[in-house]
Amino acid sequence: MQYKINMYAIVVYDVNVSRQNQIREFLRKYLYHVQRSVFEGEISPSSLYYMKKILQSYIGETDSLIIYVLRDKSCLMDKIVLGEDKDLQIY
Amino acid sequence: MQYKINMYAIVVYDVNVSRQNQIREFLRKYLYHVQRSVFEGEISPSSLYYMKKILQSYIGETDSLIIYVLRDKSCLMDKIVLGEDKDLQIY
Repeated sequence: MQYKINMYAIVVYDVNVSRQNQIREFLRKYLYHVQRSVFEGEISPSSLYYMKKILQSYIGETDSLIIYVLRDKSCLMDKIVLGEDKDLQIY
Repeated sequence: MQYKINMYAIVVYDVNVSRQNQIREFLRKYLYHVQRSVFEGEISPSSLYYMKKILQSYIGETDSLIIYVLRDKSCLMDKIVLGEDKDLQIY
């Protein structure tokens, strides 16, 4: 059985208010919502490919969305959270 | 000569408007400003320690600031930028 290691993605976005709901609801299907416009989590290469394509179709010219792709979760040496740990996945 | 590899940091924050300037101006001394409330860049362990301490002193209770620490830049397999590539370092 070929064991496939997932990559780790961190998505940050600064988009027009008219598109925020759409992008947030879409990203929730793939990643964890950890800050107002920040999502993170493990993701397979095929899901990443599909997520990117859909996000590309949503994004407006003046919007900005960045997907940081880490080889795997072990690359994340530390995650330092200052202030409130906003687990927004439940809202 | 002991060659020290820098870590790679991605900082995202969601803070009260009264503190945004202070945090932005401080982070600019260490990292690149790539999106409204996102900074990234290589950083030494000692600078990361100092940066964290200062940010901790700035952050309010309802604010949220996350520092993702990657072992080194090679851990960043890909950086996908959709929409506008906002290089804010010059503003």
